[in-house]
Amino acid sequence: MNPDEIYMQMALREAEKALEDGEIPIGAVVVCGDKIVAKAHNQVERLNDATAHAEMLALTAAMNHLQSKYLPECVLYVTVEPCSMCSGAIHWAKLKKIVYGTADEKLGFEHLGCPLHPKTKIVRGVLEKEARELMQAFFKSVRKK
Amino acid sequence: MNPDEIYMQMALREAEKALEDGEIPIGAVVVCGDKIVAKAHNQVERLNDATAHAEMLALTAAMNHLQSKYLPECVLYVTVEPCSMCSGAIHWAKLKKIVYGTADEKLGFEHLGCPLHPKTKIVRGVLEKEARELMQAFFKSVRKK
Repeated sequence: MNPDEIYMQMALREAEKALEDGEIPIGAVVVCGDKIVAKAHNQVERLNDATAHAEMLALTAAMNHLQSKYLPECVLYVTVEPCSMCSGAIHWAKLKKIVYGTADEKLGFEHLGCPLHPKTKIVRGVLEKEARELMQAFFKSVRKK
Repeated sequence: MNPDEIYMQMALREAEKALEDGEIPIGAVVVCGDKIVAKAHNQVERLNDATAHAEMLALTAAMNHLQSKYLPECVLYVTVEPCSMCSGAIHWAKLKKIVYGTADEKLGFEHLGCPLHPKTKIVRGVLEKEARELMQAFFKSVRKK
């Protein structure tokens, strides 16, 4: 496994925690240099807050941890392509790089054409299959109910 | 003054608090029926969090107050056109209506083409001059430093 895959594996573990809690299974990890500074998973149901996406929680936690409102040395790993809200947060945080797993062809920021900060690199499709299967497992269980 | 102007006036008072604190002067108020359920102003500097925009803080406070992750009966008043992050949050919250003061021709969601929930009405330009003058006062003071 390369470093991107190792950190994405951790984000997938976060997504699994969300699935166990009945949340949409999306996980995120923020890495600064070789240190993990934040991990989070979707908590929309638990917090009763439609903005409590994995990326938002992870970015705010990373900013708190580093006591910095910008994260230009940080990389965000997230299992699913971020939505427009989360891509806006990534824009403001001025991240060095984001790495995502599976695409969201309906609500993903790239599909909607929302811009990131020009300095933020984007890597797509890392452990994509695992991330997609978690999402499919969730939506299959919802349809059964 | 009509009701939209009365609530926007309150959002402007929030924006003034931000200005006093050295923050970009943007304020927001969330109204449900005829009740104010949340008021907030930009706190990016104070919280060291690039995502601590007035709209994000007000929406999360409203969701907490109403114990609901959706706000379909609520109206958000905000002094400046929301950015893509905040418009994403408005999308997820499924607001009934948003009312904004002055446009943001660089980073505003309408100028970037980011979508809201199709049920959310948009009213533009309420007390626009006051909101714009607050922003101009802030950027003038920053340039002087």
